[in-house]
Amino acid sequence: MGKIVTFGEIMLRLAPEGYYRFVQASSYGATYGGGEANVAVSLANFGADAAFVTKLPKHEIGQGAVNSLRQFGVDTSKIVRGGSRVGIYFLEKGASQRASKVIYDRAGSAIATAELKDFDWPSIFEGVSWFHFTGITPALGDTVAAITLEACKTAKARGITVSCDLNYRKNLWSREKAGEVMAGLMPFVDLCIANEEDASDVFGIHARNSDINSGKINREGYQEVAKALTERFGFKKVAITLRESFSANDNNWAAMLYVDGTAYFSKKYPVHIVDRVGGGDSFGAGLIYGTLQAYAPQETVEFAVAASCLKHSIEGDFNQISVEEVTKLAGGDASGRVQR
Amino acid sequence: MGKIVTFGEIMLRLAPEGYYRFVQASSYGATYGGGEANVAVSLANFGADAAFVTKLPKHEIGQGAVNSLRQFGVDTSKIVRGGSRVGIYFLEKGASQRASKVIYDRAGSAIATAELKDFDWPSIFEGVSWFHFTGITPALGDTVAAITLEACKTAKARGITVSCDLNYRKNLWSREKAGEVMAGLMPFVDLCIANEEDASDVFGIHARNSDINSGKINREGYQEVAKALTERFGFKKVAITLRESFSANDNNWAAMLYVDGTAYFSKKYPVHIVDRVGGGDSFGAGLIYGTLQAYAPQETVEFAVAASCLKHSIEGDFNQISVEEVTKLAGGDASGRVQR
Amino acid sequence: MGKIVTFGEIMLRLAPEGYYRFVQASSYGATYGGGEANVAVSLANFGADAAFVTKLPKHEIGQGAVNSLRQFGVDTSKIVRGGSRVGIYFLEKGASQRASKVIYDRAGSAIATAELKDFDWPSIFEGVSWFHFTGITPALGDTVAAITLEACKTAKARGITVSCDLNYRKNLWSREKAGEVMAGLMPFVDLCIANEEDASDVFGIHARNSDINSGKINREGYQEVAKALTERFGFKKVAITLRESFSANDNNWAAMLYVDGTAYFSKKYPVHIVDRVGGGDSFGAGLIYGTLQAYAPQETVEFAVAASCLKHSIEGDFNQISVEEVTKLAGGDASGRVQR
Amino acid sequence: MGKIVTFGEIMLRLAPEGYYRFVQASSYGATYGGGEANVAVSLANFGADAAFVTKLPKHEIGQGAVNSLRQFGVDTSKIVRGGSRVGIYFLEKGASQRASKVIYDRAGSAIATAELKDFDWPSIFEGVSWFHFTGITPALGDTVAAITLEACKTAKARGITVSCDLNYRKNLWSREKAGEVMAGLMPFVDLCIANEEDASDVFGIHARNSDINSGKINREGYQEVAKALTERFGFKKVAITLRESFSANDNNWAAMLYVDGTAYFSKKYPVHIVDRVGGGDSFGAGLIYGTLQAYAPQETVEFAVAASCLKHSIEGDFNQISVEEVTKLAGGDASGRVQR
Amino acid sequence: MGKIVTFGEIMLRLAPEGYYRFVQASSYGATYGGGEANVAVSLANFGADAAFVTKLPKHEIGQGAVNSLRQFGVDTSKIVRGGSRVGIYFLEKGASQRASKVIYDRAGSAIATAELKDFDWPSIFEGVSWFHFTGITPALGDTVAAITLEACKTAKARGITVSCDLNYRKNLWSREKAGEVMAGLMPFVDLCIANEEDASDVFGIHARNSDINSGKINREGYQEVAKALTERFGFKKVAITLRESFSANDNNWAAMLYVDGTAYFSKKYPVHIVDRVGGGDSFGAGLIYGTLQAYAPQETVEFAVAASCLKHSIEGDFNQISVEEVTKLAGGDASGRVQR
Amino acid sequence: MGKIVTFGEIMLRLAPEGYYRFVQASSYGATYGGGEANVAVSLANFGADAAFVTKLPKHEIGQGAVNSLRQFGVDTSKIVRGGSRVGIYFLEKGASQRASKVIYDRAGSAIATAELKDFDWPSIFEGVSWFHFTGITPALGDTVAAITLEACKTAKARGITVSCDLNYRKNLWSREKAGEVMAGLMPFVDLCIANEEDASDVFGIHARNSDINSGKINREGYQEVAKALTERFGFKKVAITLRESFSANDNNWAAMLYVDGTAYFSKKYPVHIVDRVGGGDSFGAGLIYGTLQAYAPQETVEFAVAASCLKHSIEGDFNQISVEEVTKLAGGDASGRVQR
Repeated sequence: MGKIVTFGEIMLRLAPEGYYRFVQASSYGATYGGGEANVAVSLANFGADAAFVTKLPKHEIGQGAVNSLRQFGVDTSKIVRGGSRVGIYFLEKGASQRASKVIYDRAGSAIATAELKDFDWPSIFEGVSWFHFTGITPALGDTVAAITLEACKTAKARGITVSCDLNYRKNLWSREKAGEVMAGLMPFVDLCIANEEDASDVFGIHARNSDINSGKINREGYQEVAKALTERFGFKKVAITLRESFSANDNNWAAMLYVDGTAYFSKKYPVHIVDRVGGGDSFGAGLIYGTLQAYAPQETVEFAVAASCLKHSIEGDFNQISVEEVTKLAGGDASGRVQR
Repeated sequence: MGKIVTFGEIMLRLAPEGYYRFVQASSYGATYGGGEANVAVSLANFGADAAFVTKLPKHEIGQGAVNSLRQFGVDTSKIVRGGSRVGIYFLEKGASQRASKVIYDRAGSAIATAELKDFDWPSIFEGVSWFHFTGITPALGDTVAAITLEACKTAKARGITVSCDLNYRKNLWSREKAGEVMAGLMPFVDLCIANEEDASDVFGIHARNSDINSGKINREGYQEVAKALTERFGFKKVAITLRESFSANDNNWAAMLYVDGTAYFSKKYPVHIVDRVGGGDSFGAGLIYGTLQAYAPQETVEFAVAASCLKHSIEGDFNQISVEEVTKLAGGDASGRVQR
Repeated sequence: MGKIVTFGEIMLRLAPEGYYRFVQASSYGATYGGGEANVAVSLANFGADAAFVTKLPKHEIGQGAVNSLRQFGVDTSKIVRGGSRVGIYFLEKGASQRASKVIYDRAGSAIATAELKDFDWPSIFEGVSWFHFTGITPALGDTVAAITLEACKTAKARGITVSCDLNYRKNLWSREKAGEVMAGLMPFVDLCIANEEDASDVFGIHARNSDINSGKINREGYQEVAKALTERFGFKKVAITLRESFSANDNNWAAMLYVDGTAYFSKKYPVHIVDRVGGGDSFGAGLIYGTLQAYAPQETVEFAVAASCLKHSIEGDFNQISVEEVTKLAGGDASGRVQR
Repeated sequence: MGKIVTFGEIMLRLAPEGYYRFVQASSYGATYGGGEANVAVSLANFGADAAFVTKLPKHEIGQGAVNSLRQFGVDTSKIVRGGSRVGIYFLEKGASQRASKVIYDRAGSAIATAELKDFDWPSIFEGVSWFHFTGITPALGDTVAAITLEACKTAKARGITVSCDLNYRKNLWSREKAGEVMAGLMPFVDLCIANEEDASDVFGIHARNSDINSGKINREGYQEVAKALTERFGFKKVAITLRESFSANDNNWAAMLYVDGTAYFSKKYPVHIVDRVGGGDSFGAGLIYGTLQAYAPQETVEFAVAASCLKHSIEGDFNQISVEEVTKLAGGDASGRVQR
Repeated sequence: MGKIVTFGEIMLRLAPEGYYRFVQASSYGATYGGGEANVAVSLANFGADAAFVTKLPKHEIGQGAVNSLRQFGVDTSKIVRGGSRVGIYFLEKGASQRASKVIYDRAGSAIATAELKDFDWPSIFEGVSWFHFTGITPALGDTVAAITLEACKTAKARGITVSCDLNYRKNLWSREKAGEVMAGLMPFVDLCIANEEDASDVFGIHARNSDINSGKINREGYQEVAKALTERFGFKKVAITLRESFSANDNNWAAMLYVDGTAYFSKKYPVHIVDRVGGGDSFGAGLIYGTLQAYAPQETVEFAVAASCLKHSIEGDFNQISVEEVTKLAGGDASGRVQR
Repeated sequence: MGKIVTFGEIMLRLAPEGYYRFVQASSYGATYGGGEANVAVSLANFGADAAFVTKLPKHEIGQGAVNSLRQFGVDTSKIVRGGSRVGIYFLEKGASQRASKVIYDRAGSAIATAELKDFDWPSIFEGVSWFHFTGITPALGDTVAAITLEACKTAKARGITVSCDLNYRKNLWSREKAGEVMAGLMPFVDLCIANEEDASDVFGIHARNSDINSGKINREGYQEVAKALTERFGFKKVAITLRESFSANDNNWAAMLYVDGTAYFSKKYPVHIVDRVGGGDSFGAGLIYGTLQAYAPQETVEFAVAASCLKHSIEGDFNQISVEEVTKLAGGDASGRVQR
């Protein structure tokens, strides 16, 4: 399949156990996660050869991040070591009408303060066939945006497929800034992934007649969005995830893959949520895997949606799911009967 | 807004983790709670100036109760210290068709053995605008009932608004005794709060055509109950919570506020329960807060129901919810989408 | 009621907490369980005089198994001590579309390597009125099958009622082998218990028009299965549990008891699953209890289904439920309201 | 060996984990314990036939106490069920110069409010050869003292050996009251057990030249105490434990057994404390076991001290130690090398 | 006694449980602590009226810090709310020859980025009699140093006693910078507290013939240091803690208080360490308390050392010890016997 | 340094938390470990290029073992996947005079049932400079012994240095069998490691005048043992660890390295034990590292002993210690002072 490289930030994730609120927490479960790292781990769990690139401090908290990736077989040999802190995010799990809550504490992290010269992209891309990043990475700062641009250019020059998950984060940058920076990166992107809000937030492209908070999803609207994105940036493929949020516990989950003017809609899964952080990333990993396996578009989007459906049942950012499990669900067995 | 004082018992709550039954427990989560203390904490979390009055032993278990209130900013300076034990309640969380179970071990607690002279109500009510108690407090014993009566009289004489949640507990006293004692207290009460059973248990006032266990709620019936209560005791307002119990995990939750002959019904929320103990108390706190904020009746009941809806998603007796979160839900956003 | 003896394997059950996957586990909750042991504990919790017979090593892991039974009052005095290991099963709890997963590590356990002479059945059956085993026991190996046969013969000769839960385990033996061995044991059985797949797997008797994975249950089909089983083996009663699996969290649960040509169908319960392992065993215990109490067939199947419905809300293999709780649910109170 | 009966109170023990103080505890480890129950469990762990007699409520907290005993094979069939609460004690583990702390919450427990007619001693003592109680039992109240006296009389009349551990608890009764009540019970006692303070507190018999807090132990002084006790009450044997307390973590532990005018001193063990509650009880169990095994006096006291030395390494009140482990230590292997 | 104000940073403390290393941690115990906050809590636990001043974000992690102080009765009403992050420190507990390890992640915290105008010292010092800070506070940055200077000047002008614990932190500033800034603050200080290294690191004043790592303590040398400090800055009192480090588990702990040319040495305690972070702060709190109680110098230093000796047995930064416990130890009872 | 390969079994280690006994455990901490795996991880933590070779099942328990190695950077690419179970060992931590206890449940593991053809040694040894195994590996069965022999022969033929830790396990084979098999492997070994008992158990070579249980160590005796081993098998180096066991908590730890007729004795460390399992393996890793770094003999043994001294402070089998930490201790800083 060739090697896949993802680039971004991996953070220490600190979450009170169960449904405890932050102010009730006397301990935090400690794992690691971040959009692009999540994609790399999910791919490694599918058996793919995946590497994650970032910058991390030499101290033990940085080492913990490296180890968390290495245990799943992700290649961490290209991670630059230096800087003084690991970004942190605090996560409080919601229930019923109470939403999950994220507090970011990521300013000044090693990757956010990295320099252009830290990353030798030609060397990193040796033997690589796919490069993936998300809109969070360039949002970390101008230098990281420049590093990302250099990565994209190098990748393109070497014929590496590039995918990007728009992943707009309003607390990292404004819509205007995001639109401007992302527009400079999109020309290098082959596969663009977005959720129901991203295209609107970043590029001002709206799905008609959709009301996200009410959970109303409009199939035609999303096709238009994909079409508009394709026309503007020349993407080969556009994928959009479709989440209907009934409560913090119950969502519907589906997606559309738009290829060559045709929209392929997946099945829709009612998901009982264990942990929805990383749901979009697991979808991206499924898309990349399906594409590299040369699945047909319908099969690809079904694989990606089944993979991310299963992610919602897994604690932590990382999708701990095998190809066999995804295939079984995509093939129709959603009964959840005990496997002995 | 003025200061709010609540009076009653705060107990050590011992609950096996998760869904473990008592006989399986090798440890108990230890928090504190009790009807009136829960109201005080919820109000403090709304930013109100709330004080809780009780009697607690000087030893560390008593001190733990004080600390549990102080951490949320509840004024504990009027708590009398003495007596030998903190009341305890054991709580086993139910699931599906298995009901939650409470074992009380509260006899002989410091407050239940308190004396009239322990509480100097004129001093306690210095600068206070609202006094709240529940039917549990006078049920603790004749002396506590007498203390409560003195508190009510003192409050009334000073123009303090008085609210009471009927909260009938069959293991503390008989219906007859409750009816008699409560009838003596009601003339001092401005706002009466009840759930779907209390008016019937305490005062023999029934909602017609309702079957609580089957979860059937009858709007007209509850209006009649409120009307009957108002006529009998001259309440300014009557609030009734309406719970439909489908299982230990899933309830519907709504309420009615009856003011000047008009019944204001709230929206009805389907709640996925994390912990329903304290649900009624969080409703009471919402009512008091809304009233003190001079919200209109509809707005008040919506605020109170949204607050208590959210309480069902919180572990422990105390409602850990801010005004902003309540307002957001009351305003219609029940999607539970991640807040980043 | 007389004494009930069950015979089989009790294993150490190791399960990651909550919804963690095996590869995420840094600790395992350690309990004990196994089909026949589960039946014995459930019966003891109903107040019945139940004994469990097996072979267990003398070391502390074996002792832990004994203690786990003794704490509930199960008679363990007939357990043979010896052998070198306790069978283990690893259990990962599923959620949403992700199925629960069991990894067995039971080869070479003390009971699987037991000898015929280890068990003195005439002595074990002193004062006993009921003997129960499941299809797992003879599947442990030819010697254990021979021991089971001897137990059945001895029981029959003494007029002891014999029940068997078919409980086919495909990882222990093939359908062919199972069919052959079980056919040799069935003539001694009075009450046969099966789930929706067992009759088909073991004896090739199929329910028409049912699709298990899709959760479609066909009442007529199951009657036919019971009739066919009765005709083939001369059972006095046949009970079949009917599970509809919507997801790992939500199932419907019901059963049919077939007596003298008549099928008694129970109510159907929608269950929100805490732990479904042991669900079938708790049904068996309910059937045995109801029969020994001389309940009518409809009452018996309602009792057994209500008991096993409640089991789904309990952590661990053992059903920690009293007769009063079962009777209350069977009598119609499924509201899950707090019991104070 | 005959059957051993012990009589007293078993409490729910609630202890913060590790070295956390009460005010820091967000959960309590929940076990059960009490002087006489501890002796019964320790004896059962030695393989003896031991029964514990008390009164416990029918609810689940009471049932938990029963189960905690049953799991170790203690006969609980003579426990009377009734009353409303289980006594509780809160335990905070000390470290270094900070002492462990116990808060009792045992007033009003089922046993403390039991009646004379609850216990049918002739039936309880059927087939029994040894009866054991401690000074805590009669301290629970006049009725319990009367029950204890009746038990002693019945035992004596049947030729049952009686042992008593003086175990003075200053928070339960005064020295005067204790002296009076205990003096009435001592004539029935064959073996009297005391620690370095009890004889002084209860009977005003002092060891000369000993300063307990400084950890100074005077061998001659204790012989005098044993001699004085023997002369006053006609005991056949007197055992005194000798604890030198250097800190909450480190103690020396030894004992003396006084028989027929001769004092047998055990080896002295430096113990690194895991949990010292129940240390004295495990000594008593060792003495009873050694005596019933007809060990010589020196062997008996060495067995009892080795058993209780090992108890200090065990969490909880109950001594989880086998005869083999005791014998190995008493035989000289104190190296703590890994047993594979 | 008057009110005591302390000023500095309170951090979120994240520590793996037990003796786990950072790279092994799957969860972190979450408490709060920091030099001056620790002093405030310890004083509040002594019953003193203590306030803590800092700046904290409005979000829940900041609120958690406030709550952690409020629960012990520390006045938090003067805490400024704003900024974006709470400083964090990661703590790994050492054992035997393996040292404890601290990783600071405090750059950019709310207090480190506070402005001069955030703190209205005249208003903060209303009714205050003592002001305490440590060398960590001015080390947080030039602005915080300026704020500290303003606090000192305001305090001095109002006749408030000022104490400072030198507390040199090499990762926050250089020796040169520390010497310069601290020299500007010392003229306002009445009571100077230092450990065996601070005077040397900050002001280049060395104790002769001492080797800290070897644990060798030289009484004369420390007197000289105190004398030199007094002569240079005109302190009224100088206190120096004397720690002998044998291993991560075992230390000796003592101190000297130097007043008017006389050195008062305390008893020396061998401490078995549960958690030594905050040991110095608990000593400072003891000194302040003793001084405000007008204890004589010897009594004061004995109180302070006993208080901090006990701190070493407590988990977390905060000293959870009462005046009675300190007095009991200072009075000579170090046996650690169970307090019932 | 070249690559190091170790070969053996890695087991699932299940240990009750803290000092709980097996019969008290309601959960087990789950890690992985085994002599040769421990050496590989320790070397990887030193920064060396280490690979571990074994056979493990494909299921998740097997995958967990792989992941546990991968996280520390151990090369697992040569691990053969297959077989049905992972060996297990249960570990109960001792305290004071109570010894730690190990229950092995390793029969039938994937490696114990591996076949000769599973391992392609020429390919495994590509680019390798050191091969390490222990006496446990050939003890797993005749086939594993044959595999080990083939590995030794292949290594020798390629000029790879071979080290062996005798590690006699009496529950795996008899002294006679061990002596015979190990004698066949020794001719290929360059560096032989033994503890104070191994040479005696396996080869009948005794240290004179030593009594292991009493903790008496005889320097001359060990030199003789090393000399005798060298003469018999032609080892280049012999290392012997010297443990003095005072209790389960406190040991002394030292070692001797014998090279070319000279014995180099290390410093002796008093260790306060957190977890002593893997202590010998961490010594072996230190020896290999020191040798590959071309340290002088005295420096090598000091490095190895300091490394293993620190291991005793670490939970789990694996030594989580860096070269810097070892060097610091070996250099003399054993004070355990906090590293900030």
